[in-house]
This record gives sequence, C-alpha cells and structure tokens, in this order.
Amino acid sequence: MSKKPLIIDVHGHYTTAPAALGAWRDLQIAALKDPSKTPDPKSLKISDDELRESIETNQLKLMKERGSDLTVFSPRASFMAHHIGDFNTSSTWAAICNELCYRVSQLFPDSFIGAAMLPQSPGVDPATCIPELEKCIQAYGMVGINLNPDPSGGHWTSPPLTDRQWYPIYEKMVEYDIPAMIHVSTSCNACFHTTGAHYLNADTTAFMQLIQGDLFKDFPTLKFLIPHGGGAVPYHWGRFRGLAQEMKKPLLQDHLLNNVFFDTCVYHQPGIDLLTKVIPVDNILFASEMIGAVRGIDPETGHYYDDTKRYVAATPNLSEEQRYKVFEGNARRVFPRMDAALKAKGL
Amino acid sequence: MSKKPLIIDVHGHYTTAPAALGAWRDLQIAALKDPSKTPDPKSLKISDDELRESIETNQLKLMKERGSDLTVFSPRASFMAHHIGDFNTSSTWAAICNELCYRVSQLFPDSFIGAAMLPQSPGVDPATCIPELEKCIQAYGMVGINLNPDPSGGHWTSPPLTDRQWYPIYEKMVEYDIPAMIHVSTSCNACFHTTGAHYLNADTTAFMQLIQGDLFKDFPTLKFLIPHGGGAVPYHWGRFRGLAQEMKKPLLQDHLLNNVFFDTCVYHQPGIDLLTKVIPVDNILFASEMIGAVRGIDPETGHYYDDTKRYVAATPNLSEEQRYKVFEGNARRVFPRMDAALKAKGL
Repeated sequence: MSKKPLIIDVHGHYTTAPAALGAWRDLQIAALKDPSKTPDPKSLKISDDELRESIETNQLKLMKERGSDLTVFSPRASFMAHHIGDFNTSSTWAAICNELCYRVSQLFPDSFIGAAMLPQSPGVDPATCIPELEKCIQAYGMVGINLNPDPSGGHWTSPPLTDRQWYPIYEKMVEYDIPAMIHVSTSCNACFHTTGAHYLNADTTAFMQLIQGDLFKDFPTLKFLIPHGGGAVPYHWGRFRGLAQEMKKPLLQDHLLNNVFFDTCVYHQPGIDLLTKVIPVDNILFASEMIGAVRGIDPETGHYYDDTKRYVAATPNLSEEQRYKVFEGNARRVFPRMDAALKAKGL
Repeated sequence: MSKKPLIIDVHGHYTTAPAALGAWRDLQIAALKDPSKTPDPKSLKISDDELRESIETNQLKLMKERGSDLTVFSPRASFMAHHIGDFNTSSTWAAICNELCYRVSQLFPDSFIGAAMLPQSPGVDPATCIPELEKCIQAYGMVGINLNPDPSGGHWTSPPLTDRQWYPIYEKMVEYDIPAMIHVSTSCNACFHTTGAHYLNADTTAFMQLIQGDLFKDFPTLKFLIPHGGGAVPYHWGRFRGLAQEMKKPLLQDHLLNNVFFDTCVYHQPGIDLLTKVIPVDNILFASEMIGAVRGIDPETGHYYDDTKRYVAATPNLSEEQRYKVFEGNARRVFPRMDAALKAKGL
C-alpha cells in the first residue's frame, strides 16, 4: 500500500450556508401561524458566488489545511428540524436544502458529493419521503441519505427503526444501493442538549434497536452509518455483546456488522484509539463532521478538536493497509455510487 | 500502599428479591384500575430466611468469588418504575423496596450498606420525596440515594437536573452529606431498550445538563455519581471539553469534577482502559452493578462481563495507589456516611 489514500470524509453538513437561507426559514416558520404569509421558495436567492465563498472560506479551507480530499455533504443536521410544521413544511425545506448541497457539489465536484436530507415529519408515513429521495439520487447524483429516527426532535414518538413503517425507505435504499446515516436533528426537549446529548443518545438508541430486531434478515444489503463514533456503543461494546448474547442473538459481528458502520467523529485521541481497538476496521469510516458541533482548538493539543484525521493517523491500532480502509476503501464499499463517481473520473 | 484495599462496589441493586415482591407489585399495578383492590403492604411477607437465601446464592456468592467486600445496595433500578400510578403508588412501593434493602444490610452488615430509591412520580414536586429520604438515612442508616432524572420512563417530561424544582432534594443531600446516583428506571418508550439505551442515554444527558448549568455554584458540596461508566461521556471526552469551551464554561475539571463521579460499570477491558485514561482517578469509583443487566460470561475472556474488578485490576493506567482510590478511597470520600460506618467498625 504505497499509494497515498484518498481522504474521504463521509460526514459533512452545510453548516455555513449564506444567512439568506436561515432568514427564509424564519419566514417559513413565522408563516405557520398565518399561512397567507408562507414565503415562495423562489424568493430565496443565493448566487453561485455566495455559495463559493461560504465553502471556500470554511469547509474547503479546512479540508486543504488538514489534507482531506472529498466530503460527503448534506444539509445542516440541526436545521432539518423535522418537528416544525407538517409534511409540506418539511418537503419545501428539504427541497431547498438539498438543492443547495447539490449546487455545492456542482461548483466543487472534486471536493464535495451530496447526501440528502428527507422531508420527514412526525406521525407522517416515511414513504412520503420517496419522491425527494429519488430526485436527489437520480437528478442530483447524491450518494446517500440522512435518516432521522426521531422526527419529533427529542420526544421519540416514532417506532423503532426495525418497524415496518420504515420499510419503504429501506426498499429504495436497497434499489439504489445507498446507505443511510442515522442522524437526528435539533432537540426541542429541554432535557437533551442537541449536540451534547441528543445526537449521541440517538446513535446508541439506533444501534440497540438494531440488536433487538432482525432487520437485516429482511434487507441483507441494507447499510446504516452510525455517526459520532457510534454514540456510546464502542465504549460499551462488552455490554452490547453481552445484551445480544442474553437475547440469544448471533454474535454482533454476524448480527449487525455486515450492515452497520461507524464514523470517526470522536474528538480526542483516546476515543479513536478505543474505536479502532474494539470495532473491526472494515466497519470504520473516516469523518469529522467539520464544520460542526465542536469548532474550537483543544488546549491540550493545540489542534482543532474535530481534526479527526490526526487521531486516525496517530493511532497505533491501525496498519497502513487498515488506515487506507478507514480513509478510502470502506467509504467506497459503503457508498457504491460514490465509488462509481470516483471511478468515472479515473480515481 | 502495601495494605490490601477494601473492595467497595458502589452500585448494586436488589435484583434477586423473592418472587413475592414482584407478585405484590403486580397486585398494586392491577389495582390502579380498581382502587378497592389495592393490596395492603402488610400482606407482603418475606422472611429473613428468604432474604438470606436470595442474597447468599446470588450477590454474596459472586462477591466472595470475585473478592469484593462491601456493596452499596439499593432497590432494583428497573423496578422503580416511577411512571406507574401516582405519588401514593410510588410512595408505598419505595417504602417496601427500601425496607427490604435495609433488612439485607442488617442481615449482612459487613457486606451490604443501603442506598435509597425515592418515591418520585412524573409531574409531582420532588420535595414530596423528602420524608422517605429522611427515614432511609436516619432510621435505616443508608448512605446515598438514587435520583431518577426521568420519572416518566423514557418520555423525559421533567426539567433538567439544574432546574430549581430539584433543589429541595439537593438541600437534603447537602444536609446529610450523601451523594445521589443519577439512575433512570425502566423505559416505557419502545424506542429505548432499558439497559441498552435508556440507562446510557440518561447518563450522557445528565452530564450534559450539568455542563450547561452552574448547579455547583449553588451547591458546592453536592455530589453526583454517574453510573455505567458515565454513558457516552468518557469516550467523547474531547467533545464535552470542546462544547464546554464553546459555552465559555470553565474547564470540566473545575466546572464539574469536584462534584461529579463515574463508576466502573463498563463491561470490557478497552472501556475501562479508556475510562481510567481520560477521567482523573479521583473521579472514578469501583462498581459492577452485579447482578444486573449483563449476566453472561464473555466468550472472549471466559469471565463474567460484569466482573469489572478484573478490568480495574488489569488496566495499565493505574498505579497501586490509584487502584486503592478506585476500590476504596474515593468511595469513602464520596459516601462520607459509609466511611463513618466503616470507621465505627475499625475499618
């Protein structure tokens, strides 16, 4: 393995969109009380130059500094806010946000490739998300989706991910051979800080739901990416192995690990060392969620907390060949449409 | 440090109570639909011999096998089920469960010392718990309490732990100099597996609530123990440090670690290695939660998953003196009433 791997970051959100986007959203939310004031999506004007600047001075700048090549880029997770309004609210909002990510991927085709948010809404059949999903894959060339297991925003009123209500989404994922990142949005429950509790809890919760069920018997090729290093899961890997054992489930390796993957959004060296020690290397995908929840510089290292490439590079648990898998190989396998897009460019 | 430390397990529940206890609870629950059938607490008869057998063949047997000396013993966490019925339901149930733990501590005074569950009920002022708390400390000689941050059982309808609604409990804790373990009970939300998701999520959630607030400015001597190794917290220590930094909070060491402690209920060696690497040793207390959520034998080691003493003994991160702190010294400091009880016995 002498060739330098492509550094593929599978978890980036458009957190730096021009302010006009947030202003439009504010109008949309305000109009929930007076539908006559609902803003026209066409009233939102963001130029290519504005998009370019928002990327070049932020994500792309940091990607160059840190040496990452390609980011799977989806709308800002905390802004999905599926709990706001109804299906039409989410549908209009998702279309706008996905189109912006698509435009970024067109402006910077070597650096960004899209993943879609879905127009989920609490209590609404997830099948309603399929037209937006199809558009994003077919027309926008996106390579994955973000699936919110809790569109209520911290009240957890949807059934577990193993419930048949989600199957229409899974059928489309299998048809298109795209993975879903299981990613909640903002918390509107005061108990849960969005990025410090709700995100991590959702990761842990989703994994445990998958242990309890047998979803991958029905969908042997379905793939889920659990972000934020899998929440609490790798740290408690013995607990999860033991719980699966008590439930008479197969070993986690056989029960889940053909279908479930973890990213490396863990913001210190000991965390990445644990992740790479306990989770098989074929199930770990490089990611930073940059620019995201933790934007500062760690006074203990002098580097950005979310510069996860450093931790992956420094961990003693990975050989050069294994590091290739984490940085590039696994991402190509989990995102076959990205792999195809890279190959079409000779990469 | 040549003296062998006392091995103090600060997290044990009475999960093996005689079947009559569960049968009485079933009657209590059934009577919620027909209060005329409410069972009399006096109708529950459990003899000392039955208590002895339930302990000698279970917890005490394993304590002897594993070489632990003393367990802080509280009612079964998943049976607290504060979401069931109203305050009177919880009040009667807590009194019964606490009395049983008290009796165990009297039958085996060298091996068990009590901690109390509280008669919490969703939407009810926590101050209503104080009479039961006072009885448990004053009459039963208990040394701590378990505080449920989500008496709704997975719907998270109470305010965060930093809210003033909880202050009457904290005032009593300070008065008696007792710590609270932050411990939820059974989940009645289908999204959350009780021991595989809800417990860990609650640990993470509580810690993040404490980061967001400034509770220990109001209660400088208040002490919380976060069980299950702190949920996701140590694994994501960089994330939490970074979030606190963005919120302009002091370093976590100063902001929380004079008041917040983690137990060692992490059921594999890499987890304990991470915990002891990132969390200061003064903040780690030995515990196993035996007999609890994970009762099997790990095929990878041939030992019980929850035999956490092995992991603490084996980790290269602790010196002999530090191991003394984890096994004994920190527990004496965090549970001053236990320390006093030990000293009264010349220990």
